[in-house]
Amino acid sequence: MRNIKLHIEYDGTNYSGWQVQKKLKTIQSTIESALRKILQEKIRLIVSGRTDTGVHAQDQVANFSTQSKISLLKLRSALNSNLPFDITITKAEEARRDFHSRFSANSKLYRYTILNRPYRSSFLRNTVYFCPYPLDLKAMQKESLVLLGRHDFCAFRASGSSNQNPVRTIKKLKINRKRDYIYIEIEADGFLYNMARSIVGTLIEVGRGRFPGGTLKKILLSKNRRLTGPTAPARGLCLVKVNY
Amino acid sequence: MRNIKLHIEYDGTNYSGWQVQKKLKTIQSTIESALRKILQEKIRLIVSGRTDTGVHAQDQVANFSTQSKISLLKLRSALNSNLPFDITITKAEEARRDFHSRFSANSKLYRYTILNRPYRSSFLRNTVYFCPYPLDLKAMQKESLVLLGRHDFCAFRASGSSNQNPVRTIKKLKINRKRDYIYIEIEADGFLYNMARSIVGTLIEVGRGRFPGGTLKKILLSKNRRLTGPTAPARGLCLVKVNY
Repeated sequence: MRNIKLHIEYDGTNYSGWQVQKKLKTIQSTIESALRKILQEKIRLIVSGRTDTGVHAQDQVANFSTQSKISLLKLRSALNSNLPFDITITKAEEARRDFHSRFSANSKLYRYTILNRPYRSSFLRNTVYFCPYPLDLKAMQKESLVLLGRHDFCAFRASGSSNQNPVRTIKKLKINRKRDYIYIEIEADGFLYNMARSIVGTLIEVGRGRFPGGTLKKILLSKNRRLTGPTAPARGLCLVKVNY
Repeated sequence: MRNIKLHIEYDGTNYSGWQVQKKLKTIQSTIESALRKILQEKIRLIVSGRTDTGVHAQDQVANFSTQSKISLLKLRSALNSNLPFDITITKAEEARRDFHSRFSANSKLYRYTILNRPYRSSFLRNTVYFCPYPLDLKAMQKESLVLLGRHDFCAFRASGSSNQNPVRTIKKLKINRKRDYIYIEIEADGFLYNMARSIVGTLIEVGRGRFPGGTLKKILLSKNRRLTGPTAPARGLCLVKVNY
């Protein structure tokens, strides 16, 4: 059996997230049907981690086993021909037998993009969050430091998802501005459900001056979901890289 | 009477170009209806130059006369609230009485973007032309030099548009690659109908090795439309800047 690893770029706007769900169009089900059609086998994809409805990926990773002898270049081109434009296979690789997209991953890097100026962009409607209010970048950067390292991120996960170990390690959290765009990059060994968007939503409140200095520390220690800012919209979030 | 100048960004994908046409959705008619609604006056926009169906603009310029006393910031925000997301007013300015978007323009800069790699992009479907074949950039650059300066560009205009003086001056023509993207920038004092896309389509043929060295010179001198390459698709073209 071969173990094939796919690198996938997708615009998540028109999908109910990654994971197969009955009657909903998802990234996983769309790719699995294309694979089935091409390989004439039922394929189950193992992904590095699900993404939510409307969230994008620049380089998602998924793997699957197959007995097919198809060449990797042919597989990529056949997949891209059979997939809608908003899902693209950027690379297909041979992986070691024991490679597992989720368990082998060391960390994942997400980027959140905020368009921060008084008027929207006609080109980036689906891939940035438009925030017309001034944001205090320095305050956001300063407050964010408390999140670095290993913590219980209970306060930053969606309610109703409480059966998971809530301890995660944030390895990097960078907030930069380039002209009208603010980029928040978060690298962690794993993300709880809604964690990235919940952190971003809270940092935006900090940037708008609604949370005084020290609030993020209080929220983190409180483990109380109701203290965080609103979950930032999915469209600004993109899975940039999975590190193995 | 005030003379107000608008800077406009638009994704032209869903429009039949700039100019008002009966029963078709155009950029001009969409903005004019929004202006009429806001100012309660019938407004006629003067534009720097029309763009074709599917062509985009990063900074199109149009002006209009009005007796309204609305503030410029309020006008921009009211327009953006009344316009669909794919048309954005980035700035509204007070212009001199004699400013005319078309006649006052010294030159216009267009950029054509080619995605040149074996697989498409899920994010840029509407704003780049995907060309999976290798392109010889040096050959394209070398051939393009003959187009610089003042010439009769008959060979590079759409057939059936022959009642216009075909002499134009190309002030700049730059071809660069950044990673997987090739950018062709053309600045001229004016463009004939389809001229930019016809030049790009011809340069792509050069890049694919279908036209030997010297072909562009022959085409230019021939003034024969049938010798050029196919007109490049509208989606890769964007009006970047109008210089006054």
